[in-house]
Amino acid sequence: MARVAVAGASGYAGGEVLRLLLAHPDMEIGALTAGGSAGTRLGAHQPHLLPLADRVLEETTAETLAGHDVVFLALPHGKSAELAAQLGDDTLVVDCGADHRLNDPEAWSRWYGGDHAGSWPYGLPELPGARDALRGARRVAVPGCYPTAVSLALAPAVAAGIVEPEVVVTAVTGTSGAGKSLKPHLLGAEVMGSLSAYGVGGVHRHTPEMVQNLSVAAGRPVSVSFTPVLAPLPRGILATCSARTTASTAEATEVYAKAYADEPFVHLLPEGTWPTTAATLGANTAQLQVAVDADAGRLVVVAAIDNLTKGTAGAAVQCMNLALGLPETAGLPVTGVAP
Amino acid sequence: MARVAVAGASGYAGGEVLRLLLAHPDMEIGALTAGGSAGTRLGAHQPHLLPLADRVLEETTAETLAGHDVVFLALPHGKSAELAAQLGDDTLVVDCGADHRLNDPEAWSRWYGGDHAGSWPYGLPELPGARDALRGARRVAVPGCYPTAVSLALAPAVAAGIVEPEVVVTAVTGTSGAGKSLKPHLLGAEVMGSLSAYGVGGVHRHTPEMVQNLSVAAGRPVSVSFTPVLAPLPRGILATCSARTTASTAEATEVYAKAYADEPFVHLLPEGTWPTTAATLGANTAQLQVAVDADAGRLVVVAAIDNLTKGTAGAAVQCMNLALGLPETAGLPVTGVAP
Amino acid sequence: MARVAVAGASGYAGGEVLRLLLAHPDMEIGALTAGGSAGTRLGAHQPHLLPLADRVLEETTAETLAGHDVVFLALPHGKSAELAAQLGDDTLVVDCGADHRLNDPEAWSRWYGGDHAGSWPYGLPELPGARDALRGARRVAVPGCYPTAVSLALAPAVAAGIVEPEVVVTAVTGTSGAGKSLKPHLLGAEVMGSLSAYGVGGVHRHTPEMVQNLSVAAGRPVSVSFTPVLAPLPRGILATCSARTTASTAEATEVYAKAYADEPFVHLLPEGTWPTTAATLGANTAQLQVAVDADAGRLVVVAAIDNLTKGTAGAAVQCMNLALGLPETAGLPVTGVAP
Amino acid sequence: MARVAVAGASGYAGGEVLRLLLAHPDMEIGALTAGGSAGTRLGAHQPHLLPLADRVLEETTAETLAGHDVVFLALPHGKSAELAAQLGDDTLVVDCGADHRLNDPEAWSRWYGGDHAGSWPYGLPELPGARDALRGARRVAVPGCYPTAVSLALAPAVAAGIVEPEVVVTAVTGTSGAGKSLKPHLLGAEVMGSLSAYGVGGVHRHTPEMVQNLSVAAGRPVSVSFTPVLAPLPRGILATCSARTTASTAEATEVYAKAYADEPFVHLLPEGTWPTTAATLGANTAQLQVAVDADAGRLVVVAAIDNLTKGTAGAAVQCMNLALGLPETAGLPVTGVAP
Repeated sequence: MARVAVAGASGYAGGEVLRLLLAHPDMEIGALTAGGSAGTRLGAHQPHLLPLADRVLEETTAETLAGHDVVFLALPHGKSAELAAQLGDDTLVVDCGADHRLNDPEAWSRWYGGDHAGSWPYGLPELPGARDALRGARRVAVPGCYPTAVSLALAPAVAAGIVEPEVVVTAVTGTSGAGKSLKPHLLGAEVMGSLSAYGVGGVHRHTPEMVQNLSVAAGRPVSVSFTPVLAPLPRGILATCSARTTASTAEATEVYAKAYADEPFVHLLPEGTWPTTAATLGANTAQLQVAVDADAGRLVVVAAIDNLTKGTAGAAVQCMNLALGLPETAGLPVTGVAP
Repeated sequence: MARVAVAGASGYAGGEVLRLLLAHPDMEIGALTAGGSAGTRLGAHQPHLLPLADRVLEETTAETLAGHDVVFLALPHGKSAELAAQLGDDTLVVDCGADHRLNDPEAWSRWYGGDHAGSWPYGLPELPGARDALRGARRVAVPGCYPTAVSLALAPAVAAGIVEPEVVVTAVTGTSGAGKSLKPHLLGAEVMGSLSAYGVGGVHRHTPEMVQNLSVAAGRPVSVSFTPVLAPLPRGILATCSARTTASTAEATEVYAKAYADEPFVHLLPEGTWPTTAATLGANTAQLQVAVDADAGRLVVVAAIDNLTKGTAGAAVQCMNLALGLPETAGLPVTGVAP
Repeated sequence: MARVAVAGASGYAGGEVLRLLLAHPDMEIGALTAGGSAGTRLGAHQPHLLPLADRVLEETTAETLAGHDVVFLALPHGKSAELAAQLGDDTLVVDCGADHRLNDPEAWSRWYGGDHAGSWPYGLPELPGARDALRGARRVAVPGCYPTAVSLALAPAVAAGIVEPEVVVTAVTGTSGAGKSLKPHLLGAEVMGSLSAYGVGGVHRHTPEMVQNLSVAAGRPVSVSFTPVLAPLPRGILATCSARTTASTAEATEVYAKAYADEPFVHLLPEGTWPTTAATLGANTAQLQVAVDADAGRLVVVAAIDNLTKGTAGAAVQCMNLALGLPETAGLPVTGVAP
Repeated sequence: MARVAVAGASGYAGGEVLRLLLAHPDMEIGALTAGGSAGTRLGAHQPHLLPLADRVLEETTAETLAGHDVVFLALPHGKSAELAAQLGDDTLVVDCGADHRLNDPEAWSRWYGGDHAGSWPYGLPELPGARDALRGARRVAVPGCYPTAVSLALAPAVAAGIVEPEVVVTAVTGTSGAGKSLKPHLLGAEVMGSLSAYGVGGVHRHTPEMVQNLSVAAGRPVSVSFTPVLAPLPRGILATCSARTTASTAEATEVYAKAYADEPFVHLLPEGTWPTTAATLGANTAQLQVAVDADAGRLVVVAAIDNLTKGTAGAAVQCMNLALGLPETAGLPVTGVAP
């Protein structure tokens, strides 16, 4: 049994990590830490995690996190690097935040500001080459939720060279992606019954991460026009991704079938079936489908994930499994909760 | 490994049974059957059940169900009795429908019409005496979703005699409780943004089941005024139950704490915390809280369950575990999926 | 044309008052004021109020509100009394807050704390005697949203003496009733997919207002056991109200038909039809239906309103019409927005 | 007063037409007709339309519709042409269906099958040249809901030549756009908590209508890659539209500000503000915002409308106003219902 600490246990990402760890056969849950909520019961923040309801949250410090085999960091961006530096190299640190995702220090400065903390092995094992870098790693940068959906949707096409390297993405998401931030536009009364775009015009911070992933997969620069849309549901991302192509639907389907044939968590759906986020709720799965619009000359790929599971905490546990040498699928659900 | 068949696999109850069985360590999934959907892929109806997506639904007949150790029936009421009669006594038959829930043939005729098929051991192990009848049983009647919430909420109070035997219940529910019926009032556009009462004035068929359970628990007749309310969410029942009392909140709390001290799935929440259905989503749990309104002289008990899990399929699997002599909690989640 | 100011224009109640005033034939909109949002555009807070989008919010003070014929106060409780005292007696002040609803100073102190500001004519014209007190009034206390639904549902029965004076109410509501409060449990991700009870055991501050209204209607003390439930929708209250009766459904229906025969905004539905909140969305209407559960010996009355319209701002405008001597229905929608 | 009949009065489009007509100063509501629901009360289908609740639906025939000044047809596609042919040329016929939207008979045959019924003046007055054709018209083809949002979003840019004539659109919609169809994927339990794409790869029937509108506006062929997404809300379309550009955000903003400067229903939002569908709920308005993503070299335009109001029934009434020589804005709300 490995002993695990979770920093940021009162938030949505931390809660989902704990939900998955509770079902993991090889993990023992150690320290649970928080910022402003330190000293309160976990049950006050995560009433669904019954077995841990009476655990009291400790302060998030290097001391409370020390002495664990694995530490998950589910903290606001900019908070992980300093903490991680104080944790020994024998501890596996899995960062659910953004601090170590971007390879390019200039990109970091432009999009997040301040100094770059360096990049860690990138936690999307399904990307070409990524899995090997994760095996035995002691530091892992968990991808952003949008880049997960979009990279899974487009990497096979750009890698196979069947599309031009200019992609257009609209990704619709539930509101848990914004975390438990107390902002007026995230109130239930505002969210329900409404759709809204935000971060339009290429200004969302997940954009450079998509550019990075797809450019690596393509072996040449790929531009990404990305628009996120907020919709009235707690969880789920549905990404609609397209790019110019001269391929047929059959050719594109073959590329994707081959790319994901051996992946346990990425499913190309049967012809005529399209992804729904509900089918992935609580599961570490991605559902994909592709079609070529011959009139418009574009390949369209739709991907559905649960932003908190495959989009965050499930990826984190999947990478932990790889890093610790456990079976990659250990403890990870492949069935969703529906309806 | 026991081999299991599920009749009604394309519906919501059948889908939830399968979701739980997929995570059960001791079960092997055999025939999946349906009515009108026979011959189609399960994935077309239950896209969240990925490991079974390519299984083809067979016709619901005694022949297709024969030869399994366990058969779950998730069929419209009135359809179970005849099928069950054709299945051998060595087969465990777990009926998620209403046919065998009521003990009183007159009550059956009044509320459902037609002849009574007889009653089976009642699948709410947390009711006094119920667990013993379920151990080793070969026929089980799974309770209705509302009676589960309401009986868990009120049985301790009526059994302890701390309330008068006239209870008032308003239970709010998500729309999956109505099944996949193609009725206008269940369309998304009608349901979202609306609350509606139905079956008002004591005419809902789950009423006699509540009366039965509470009268048995009380040892005397209990009347139930029951109003169901439809709310815009897929899953969940929140039951608000009250009855006249002279007890204090502290006394009532003690009654409930004692009644459920050893129950793995029923949780009396800490003082000041009230149940939310999200905390039970996909879990086989019930969350309860009690308070006495001294001004009005009433005990108020609020119970939250997931109507498809503890309210149907989870109870079915829990009873199966008891009937087969497995650990009662085998394969049953106690953590919900939230937010 | 009367000139109107709205204090609290950035909130939900203030926004709904403005929405109705924009459609009112006799009103000119003057000062719009706020607390922390003073100095910002109204459009930033109420993007649906296009004709006023570029109006800048002023500070809520007696000075900015002075010089208007009508002032609506949509402020947190405890904030209205002092402001109103500084507005002349020739100004009509319509208080959407709680400060002047309760007649009994002791009840005020118990439920809200502090000194009682005195009571104003109570703004539910459909209550016996209430309409006359509102005609020509210069101060109006708009009822709470729950007391509106519950009083309309039960006043006829208690006034006619067809029920015992102990009533039980569960009222389900959308989240706008809580206002734009930045609290974790009101976040979209928490609210959607969940039902939760709160203020259980008779501790909700709207309880004494129901007791007051029903006791006045009955001419004797009436006890109210009230439980509010939060559901995932922006607007709407569905109140399920019951009390012991020996009357029949037909007798009860007659009582209600008579009570509301001439009311333009309260509709007893045809037999067999039950209220839905969607039918009242954005309308100043209440929909009611009654049934007697003979087995349980209880009258059940279900009422649906829009908590922001008939439950707050619509009632405010209706009372303004009465106070100013305008047609009571001026500017008030009787059709809802559905689906 | 003009006398109006509505065919398809039990559906969502017909209901919305009636809601608007009830608030129109110059209209008297005559025959209300339906197919399978003929003979039933309107209140059973449209409980929000209280003033018409007791009206009985007649059969949809030329006879019941005859003798009105205006006839609205809210019927499945393929049903309007034959009926309209039987209505006199002095009757204004406003067709909310698809039959007369496409100019090109071949496009009709390809996308809808069968013979083309001919095209009528196209009911989007904000398109260049469209308004004149609608004044005094006796036949009007109301646009599809998606083409309304997308054409308003992109026509100025393609007309001004600031984008390349290849546009990419993802439009997210509420479920009322599908009408009251009794299909499993439209059930509340399926829709809530889920996002799903459909009609992917350019196969949605609204695509040729967008191509037609934008090609006319551009004066050259425009290709449209269109993907619709279903989201959990009753009403609303949020369209994210993009195309390659070398213009700046300021230049694009100027184009749109000029294009819609005099339009009463189309609003370019202030800088930094993005459209939300809730702000348009029940209103005949469109909210737009534009931004250029310089990295990706694309103009992104986001448009929000209510699919039933500006997307269908509001446009129908707006066109009726033009055709009858009434003020274009008569009876049409510009404030939404929010939250």
